[in-house]
Amino acid sequence: MTRFALTVEYDGRPFMGWQRQKHGPSVQQALEEAVFAVTGERAAVHAAGRTDAGVHGLGMRAHVDIAKDIAPFRLMEALNARVRPAPVAVLDCVVVADDWHARFSCLGRAYDYRIVNRRAPLTWEAGLAWQVPQVLDADAMAAAAAVLVGRHDFTTFRSAHCQADSPVRTLDVLSVARAGERIAVRAAARSFLHHQVRSMVGCLALVGMGRWSVEDVRVALEARDRARLGLNAPPDGLFFVSAVY
Amino acid sequence: MTRFALTVEYDGRPFMGWQRQKHGPSVQQALEEAVFAVTGERAAVHAAGRTDAGVHGLGMRAHVDIAKDIAPFRLMEALNARVRPAPVAVLDCVVVADDWHARFSCLGRAYDYRIVNRRAPLTWEAGLAWQVPQVLDADAMAAAAAVLVGRHDFTTFRSAHCQADSPVRTLDVLSVARAGERIAVRAAARSFLHHQVRSMVGCLALVGMGRWSVEDVRVALEARDRARLGLNAPPDGLFFVSAVY
Repeated sequence: MTRFALTVEYDGRPFMGWQRQKHGPSVQQALEEAVFAVTGERAAVHAAGRTDAGVHGLGMRAHVDIAKDIAPFRLMEALNARVRPAPVAVLDCVVVADDWHARFSCLGRAYDYRIVNRRAPLTWEAGLAWQVPQVLDADAMAAAAAVLVGRHDFTTFRSAHCQADSPVRTLDVLSVARAGERIAVRAAARSFLHHQVRSMVGCLALVGMGRWSVEDVRVALEARDRARLGLNAPPDGLFFVSAVY
Repeated sequence: MTRFALTVEYDGRPFMGWQRQKHGPSVQQALEEAVFAVTGERAAVHAAGRTDAGVHGLGMRAHVDIAKDIAPFRLMEALNARVRPAPVAVLDCVVVADDWHARFSCLGRAYDYRIVNRRAPLTWEAGLAWQVPQVLDADAMAAAAAVLVGRHDFTTFRSAHCQADSPVRTLDVLSVARAGERIAVRAAARSFLHHQVRSMVGCLALVGMGRWSVEDVRVALEARDRARLGLNAPPDGLFFVSAVY
């Protein structure tokens, strides 16, 4: 058996998410079927993060164990040929140690969230960004983001379906940058709770709209109560960017 | 009659191009049907550039004459509501003088061409960029681009279907910039011949691959012969960015 680490890009729009589901297509299933087409092996593909339905991957990391004798470059090319027409691409493929684990060895994860702040609907990037018609104050959003950075109990920003043992996470980065009508939110941490990035972005947007103050974000955080969440941003704008090992 | 100038964004993938066609959907038809839905008027929508099938618009300019008494902002909002589900959006709408013409008053046009230079296929941007698997030398492409800047007979870079009276054009800008796996080509001129940008980008790519030298581009230009064109880049990566008046 050889363990291969993959860097994977995918368009989340047609998928129920990363993880295999009985009721619809998943990125994991698309990759596992490509592995089977290439090797004849039923191998599980494990990812650094199990993104939700509609969430995209730019630099998702994953691993798979394969018995067949195949060079990493050939495996990458073959997977890309067989995964079509699913919008999934293997950008990199290397051999790693048997104890390297895409999820458990991961020391840091980064997400980008893309907002298009305009009244007009999206065209070519429908499903690839969150269109917010109200004028957003990106400086106020950045000030609110600073409240969330650090080690906190993020219960307010956690899905009811979150399976993590603890709601405490250390948020290393939460930055907000405007370029014209586009606002990019970058979030980085060792790990995130389920829906944490979308929940944080939703509340930052409320601040941007002037419906919440920076202090409202602090109160929501300190309440440790999911019912105090202001808004959960849609999956469309969320991209898993990179994982650190 | 009031003349309205529109700034229009569109995803070119589902369209036969800007111009109305008998055999398929067009951006012009989508907008003209939206105008009819809003005003009850059969008005022609004229654009600064008649982009081809699969070519996108980020800041296309257009105009339309409307008899109905309607404020520009309301017209924009109503067009955006009625043009759906076509991936077309009106980003701006202003009243202009009766002799302002989106095409004939236009003093400059700018296009971007997006190349993704990697072996892996595209996922979320399939149809929105040209994937080139061979490693491209962007510096060589920039050197070749410099050969094409200026006033030239662009017969080599002109479609057989081009209807322009003269093949002479003055190319003001043709720049090449790499950022990671992405290469962006920017082209600006008062006007372009049919397929000119795609033809120029195709030849730049040949230089980037090392199949053509910079001198080959000069020879092809000076040949004034369409048969000497090396490669016509696909429409996928081409975006009409802006028009100057």
